[in-house]
Amino acid sequence: MPIRFLITGGTFDKEYNEINGELYFKETHLPEILKRGRCRVDVSITTLMMIDSLEMTNNHRQLIADHCLDAVEEKIIITHGTDTMSDTARFLAPLIQHKTIVLTGAMIPYKFGSSDGLFNLGSALAFVQSLPKGVYVAMNGKFFNWDNVRKNRQTGQFEELV
Amino acid sequence: MPIRFLITGGTFDKEYNEINGELYFKETHLPEILKRGRCRVDVSITTLMMIDSLEMTNNHRQLIADHCLDAVEEKIIITHGTDTMSDTARFLAPLIQHKTIVLTGAMIPYKFGSSDGLFNLGSALAFVQSLPKGVYVAMNGKFFNWDNVRKNRQTGQFEELV
Amino acid sequence: MPIRFLITGGTFDKEYNEINGELYFKETHLPEILKRGRCRVDVSITTLMMIDSLEMTNNHRQLIADHCLDAVEEKIIITHGTDTMSDTARFLAPLIQHKTIVLTGAMIPYKFGSSDGLFNLGSALAFVQSLPKGVYVAMNGKFFNWDNVRKNRQTGQFEELV
Amino acid sequence: MPIRFLITGGTFDKEYNEINGELYFKETHLPEILKRGRCRVDVSITTLMMIDSLEMTNNHRQLIADHCLDAVEEKIIITHGTDTMSDTARFLAPLIQHKTIVLTGAMIPYKFGSSDGLFNLGSALAFVQSLPKGVYVAMNGKFFNWDNVRKNRQTGQFEELV
Repeated sequence: MPIRFLITGGTFDKEYNEINGELYFKETHLPEILKRGRCRVDVSITTLMMIDSLEMTNNHRQLIADHCLDAVEEKIIITHGTDTMSDTARFLAPLIQHKTIVLTGAMIPYKFGSSDGLFNLGSALAFVQSLPKGVYVAMNGKFFNWDNVRKNRQTGQFEELV
Repeated sequence: MPIRFLITGGTFDKEYNEINGELYFKETHLPEILKRGRCRVDVSITTLMMIDSLEMTNNHRQLIADHCLDAVEEKIIITHGTDTMSDTARFLAPLIQHKTIVLTGAMIPYKFGSSDGLFNLGSALAFVQSLPKGVYVAMNGKFFNWDNVRKNRQTGQFEELV
Repeated sequence: MPIRFLITGGTFDKEYNEINGELYFKETHLPEILKRGRCRVDVSITTLMMIDSLEMTNNHRQLIADHCLDAVEEKIIITHGTDTMSDTARFLAPLIQHKTIVLTGAMIPYKFGSSDGLFNLGSALAFVQSLPKGVYVAMNGKFFNWDNVRKNRQTGQFEELV
Repeated sequence: MPIRFLITGGTFDKEYNEINGELYFKETHLPEILKRGRCRVDVSITTLMMIDSLEMTNNHRQLIADHCLDAVEEKIIITHGTDTMSDTARFLAPLIQHKTIVLTGAMIPYKFGSSDGLFNLGSALAFVQSLPKGVYVAMNGKFFNWDNVRKNRQTGQFEELV
């Protein structure tokens, strides 16, 4: 049951530039995170982009959809910034019917000590292996269906629409 | 979908005693871990014991079984030392038919920077929410059925029997 | 040999706001850092301001000087952003003759796992106890006299002028 | 002002073996620690032994003394287990007159998140650069003369004899 990871950036992979004090992207920390989790699942990793999800356009989303459709794997995890994660889920769902797609990310960069990234990745990996086909968001220890999720900007938590 | 945690100890919860240089148990780090994961799942936590799993007897296992049976929750996560985690899964399975039970733990104490505990807990929480009734071990990013799992003592990894 | 800490902010004490993704100040981490270092030195801590050192004006510097002069302690450590640390050292030196003043800070916030803050604070505490009266910058494991130090903006390291 | 590091082991450099749950030595973390501290001091590092200081004999101490005497550097830091650090200081002092020797260590292994090692190393580096010739212990943010120091086994802290 091989799993495909598609990396798009987001807080998850941000780093602190100590010269100018700004956050930036270098490369994904996913291999390091999987190693720390002693993960023995068969995975392949593709970095599609490294962007803040506030910059994500539908062109970016179409690229993600194409890679989901082209992948040989039926189980796909997309790492994604949290701000527009729900939007990307809604974009992908009508285009991809026969795969299990799980979007996840982090509120705190993995490289900062207190990140939720390791936890979220553990839950995303488990959900993608055990949920039926469909498009989901995995955050806060829960999974959400693509058509019933939003990020609450005040609390930073994901919640159902109704 | 409330989830019950039963704490039994294991490497997961060990700490370093800086006075005598030995590892010991104080109290579970589970609430701290769930907070770090920004977990919003409704959970209840019961500490049954704080022991190294090499010291676990069938009396201990019966106590765990009793708590699984008595709990109002149908989804239960048991934190457990890795050395005899498979044994406890085998003990519980014939006794509990109508619940989803997931055992998990860690190879490195949570309090040491490089622990797999946060990852394992994320995956255990996701598996317990999405797997059908039964008894499972969640380690290394995978889930294992109770009757087809062992810890490989050489590699420290969990694997199927066949 | 009691030591006075004057807190002014800087990268040292910055935190990550997970709601808006920006760095900000809450309160100083100095007591937490001293505890982690098992520090047994007799210290008093005063927070004068919590600002980025690029925002520091000579009014701020005069306030620091006043507190240095008014303090009963003869040994004073000032935590300070790195960008204008040298400027503040140059401002203070002509005003304070009979005390040992050490400025220090960090390139990475203490709350991010990879910070140099714990190291820098250890060295600042040692230098303030063992150097003669004067105003110094303690960074990169070294001490610099107030009139012979600058931060190299390209490398992020402190160096002598000549 | 180049500084020589002599590594002897101690809690400072211990690691957790996740296969058997025991603490052990692999190699020193000193270069990693200096890098994290953005240390720009000119240093040379020699690993003499990797042992728990409870196992240290006077033969070991003579080897340390020989290396202190043979080193071209006049400033030397010895990383050492805390239990017999004071004994080694007393052994070295009569043999080495014309150098500044600072012994330091840690109560918690550097690899565990909460270690005091980074702090202690920062203070040892500063003390060795600024103290007059002699043999010292640098722990708890303080320095102690070789003939007036002991570890309090109850508190884990270093203190003066009188």
